[in-house]
Amino acid sequence: MLLEAVYHRPRLNWSYAYDHETIHLRLRAKKGDLTEVFAWAGDKYAWDTTKELIPMTLFTSDAMFDYWECESVPLYRRLKYGFLLQKGHERIWMTESDFQTERPANPNRLFEFPYINRGDVFTPPAWVKDAVFYQIFPERFANGDPSLNPDNVQPWGGTPKPDNFFGGDLQGVIDHLDHLTELGITGIYFTPIFTATTNHKYDTEDYMMVDPHFGDVATLKRLVDACHERGIRVLLDAVFNHAGRTFAPFVDVLEKGEASVYKDWFHVREFPLQVVDNIPNYDAFAFEPLMPKLNTENPEVKEYLLKVAEYWIREVGIDGWRLDVANEVDHEFWRDFRKVVKRANPEAYILGEIWHESAPWLEGDKFDAVMNYPFTDAVLDFFVYGTLDAEGFANSIGKQLSRYPLQASEVAFNLLDSHDTARLLTVADGDKNKLRLAALFQFTFMGTPCIYYGDEIGMDGDGDPDCRKCMEWDPAKQDRDLFSYYRKLIEIRGSHPALRTGSFTFLEAGPQGSKLAYERNLGDDLIIVLINTEETAQTFLVDVQERSWENLLTGEPLRAERGRLTLKLPAYGYAVLQANLA
Amino acid sequence: MLLEAVYHRPRLNWSYAYDHETIHLRLRAKKGDLTEVFAWAGDKYAWDTTKELIPMTLFTSDAMFDYWECESVPLYRRLKYGFLLQKGHERIWMTESDFQTERPANPNRLFEFPYINRGDVFTPPAWVKDAVFYQIFPERFANGDPSLNPDNVQPWGGTPKPDNFFGGDLQGVIDHLDHLTELGITGIYFTPIFTATTNHKYDTEDYMMVDPHFGDVATLKRLVDACHERGIRVLLDAVFNHAGRTFAPFVDVLEKGEASVYKDWFHVREFPLQVVDNIPNYDAFAFEPLMPKLNTENPEVKEYLLKVAEYWIREVGIDGWRLDVANEVDHEFWRDFRKVVKRANPEAYILGEIWHESAPWLEGDKFDAVMNYPFTDAVLDFFVYGTLDAEGFANSIGKQLSRYPLQASEVAFNLLDSHDTARLLTVADGDKNKLRLAALFQFTFMGTPCIYYGDEIGMDGDGDPDCRKCMEWDPAKQDRDLFSYYRKLIEIRGSHPALRTGSFTFLEAGPQGSKLAYERNLGDDLIIVLINTEETAQTFLVDVQERSWENLLTGEPLRAERGRLTLKLPAYGYAVLQANLA
Repeated sequence: MLLEAVYHRPRLNWSYAYDHETIHLRLRAKKGDLTEVFAWAGDKYAWDTTKELIPMTLFTSDAMFDYWECESVPLYRRLKYGFLLQKGHERIWMTESDFQTERPANPNRLFEFPYINRGDVFTPPAWVKDAVFYQIFPERFANGDPSLNPDNVQPWGGTPKPDNFFGGDLQGVIDHLDHLTELGITGIYFTPIFTATTNHKYDTEDYMMVDPHFGDVATLKRLVDACHERGIRVLLDAVFNHAGRTFAPFVDVLEKGEASVYKDWFHVREFPLQVVDNIPNYDAFAFEPLMPKLNTENPEVKEYLLKVAEYWIREVGIDGWRLDVANEVDHEFWRDFRKVVKRANPEAYILGEIWHESAPWLEGDKFDAVMNYPFTDAVLDFFVYGTLDAEGFANSIGKQLSRYPLQASEVAFNLLDSHDTARLLTVADGDKNKLRLAALFQFTFMGTPCIYYGDEIGMDGDGDPDCRKCMEWDPAKQDRDLFSYYRKLIEIRGSHPALRTGSFTFLEAGPQGSKLAYERNLGDDLIIVLINTEETAQTFLVDVQERSWENLLTGEPLRAERGRLTLKLPAYGYAVLQANLA
Repeated sequence: MLLEAVYHRPRLNWSYAYDHETIHLRLRAKKGDLTEVFAWAGDKYAWDTTKELIPMTLFTSDAMFDYWECESVPLYRRLKYGFLLQKGHERIWMTESDFQTERPANPNRLFEFPYINRGDVFTPPAWVKDAVFYQIFPERFANGDPSLNPDNVQPWGGTPKPDNFFGGDLQGVIDHLDHLTELGITGIYFTPIFTATTNHKYDTEDYMMVDPHFGDVATLKRLVDACHERGIRVLLDAVFNHAGRTFAPFVDVLEKGEASVYKDWFHVREFPLQVVDNIPNYDAFAFEPLMPKLNTENPEVKEYLLKVAEYWIREVGIDGWRLDVANEVDHEFWRDFRKVVKRANPEAYILGEIWHESAPWLEGDKFDAVMNYPFTDAVLDFFVYGTLDAEGFANSIGKQLSRYPLQASEVAFNLLDSHDTARLLTVADGDKNKLRLAALFQFTFMGTPCIYYGDEIGMDGDGDPDCRKCMEWDPAKQDRDLFSYYRKLIEIRGSHPALRTGSFTFLEAGPQGSKLAYERNLGDDLIIVLINTEETAQTFLVDVQERSWENLLTGEPLRAERGRLTLKLPAYGYAVLQANLA
């Protein structure tokens, strides 16, 4: 038994309340090392009458480790626990202080889950588990009101540059809601829409005003209402890490220097403000002089930004916020942000932009989810670049599942591209087979999928600014087959709870493998997804319990013979099979 | 290289801001496995011009692992980082996603410390590092005002029972402050003093009133003022996890059941309240019907308790709170508690009662320290029970140092006994040699020592209620030698910053060992402590750089010969040696 590989530490993903009554415990061990694992748990004040061995199951693995899990619903909402590790006949007990061969004499030195306090339980809004998001970059989605066009507006469909404009606006979105309804999405994430000087609007000038090139508060209200009528929720972008160079308080500091009453609204290293060798002498997003970092610890700044956060929820009824550069802002700010937002709308969704492992922000007091770029990386590495084989992909996904409490994985914001990356089709070198497989995984995995505008009709684009092309509205230039494919994925996901919150298990993901099979299961809803990433046909052999199956994409029936499904998939072929449990 | 043993995960003890400018990074590896470790770090927005290899040093070890550490002061207060692990010629790079043999091509998949926000930095009050605490159980310390005696008060010095009273009070403490000043302590932690029915007062009846058997608010004010005049800070006990059966809101629920306006102040599983087979049908501390658990998530309860927390700071000027059963109360409550307390007194000290590893409460938003019972366990296991050898003891201490950020270890509340345990002298079977050695370690280690009243004059006592005997005030019955010893320990600690906040390194702690040697160092203050836990004399050979040394306990000079100090210590002997760097 490799004890150096065994890991458990209370909280985060290792011991957490899934709900007000249920505790999940997890333990890490070297891959393949342990044959059985038990939690040894009970009430610390009634140990002798409550202690029990709870079998743990292997719930996921990565390249080096297995992760074992169990749940407990303790009557008095508290748990003292250790672990019993078995490898064949070898038995080791793990306590908070050490490993030992003898069963610990008493619970004193075991781990502890002190008490499930309801407010400490991480509880994302329930609707997010079922949502499908669509990301819109407003300047490039549709021009619905040419009277709002910026000066020097370029003809729709021109080449995007860092500083040019095409006249997209909120009316344009309203005009095209049928497209979104037909596609079937249930949420829109808008990149910033408040007054700013750039086309991307990440340099806010006025947080309380819709950018005049996009519309006004009345347009926004109409847009949100129209979305709500169609069952679509609306997320706006909160750019609170930094403001823009034309933000009035910053202009004041630029002009008055240390004499400005706003001098503590920013992180100024020396006055007067200046930029030397492209490095501003005030903190900024990256080293971008256009984006001075806000001092979110300054009570005035905080009060102002929290007022902004509340205003747009109460005034126009938005359903949540996406938080730009969220990990560079102080944790205390986000805690207070959550309180303000949830008070204004208890069902509001808080989505942070963090490109890294994000467990410290997903404990219940800050965000509901983060933009899951590690998911993006894994999917691209396997389905697109081929730098991971099926085993490596399964290990990467497994590692991600191991990092978070289940309720976080259930609402992870799973995207494959965005305004900050090249488009999926372009990284796939235009190969729509690869794009389809990547999207299939995205829509049949745990978490909330998000489509970047235009991906569904075959738009391409390299990194910024090329990924911010004008949406293609000419049906002749849209890939309507691809659109139908995305619509089908959304429809299947929508009608199968197992694909949203069911358990997730890899069935086939081998070394050098290009065959992927996995199971999603929730109650009577049992689904197996098969994906062939090879450019030749491959035959899948999958051991199953059920005899009768149906391919949800084609309606075809299948039968398992002698406990095994046999299915030949063409190059880049795929199948989504549902068991007929009737 | 055993990669399964290598561990790093951002935050907690692994990557944290020590102050507004300084980031500490730590990495765990199998004991003895790595020969060199580097952090590979830089600014993510200026990677090529800032990236560097920062050598890490082995800062502590436990039974299975080494812990490597480095610090960085990044100009722009943010850090992207990975690690380079070396074992002889073998080199492995560690990123957030995996281990690899090639240097990562770019910083994208490295770990990240996004930005040091000042308010997120864990900053305990500076004075706590230098404090020596003394714990007083007021009913048993001194009877200064017999007019306040409870009915049926027992003669001072009688046998303590769970429910008897001896008349100790606050005036008694005032009367004996000279004892504490002579001893040299700089802080008192009082177990509860608010109105309650028991002798220990952990069943609060009225949080806004000093127990009439102890005095009144005026007495308390006199006591706090008198302490402050002597440079002694005062900590009161906040029993906020649960109230007492006579607490008015609970009485109301007992009487009116579901109709009570206070019904949501507690966690009631069913009405009317009752106790069946010793199990109350409402949540309690343990299963103690006398102590109904408070619903600290109820805004009314929270407001009330936070008012209490603030009142005693503002009204009588206490210097902080010790928090009873702190880990069973919701985290959100403690976050708000911290804000209220620090607003009332930015230098106030918040000390939680947690018997376990407590990292989740020591991140800066909740407590400043916890009662360090794992320290107690380790010291007793080695110095008293002999169940650990010197190596095992060093491993246990090393593990504790590895668990927390440095600033937490600097203010850990290191106690050897309390009102909740048997007394040190009793667990040592009356052997004062062992007691002296344990106390010597306590006072020469990092963290804030606390003496349980009476230990300093040789009081004994088994577990509760026996550990709550009346303080012995008859000089003839006090061990004045022991008192002088404690006074000397406090004095040496007070005059040597290295003993408080210097680095800590074991020099000798071998398998089966009963010789312990360790170094404390801060700037020019270099101290070596030698402890012989054997009942026979032993000779210590310690390699040192400096030639001239002085034994701080005896004033004797010592000289190192050929880079080595040689010192024979008698049975249970000890020495505290300071290098003469002049």
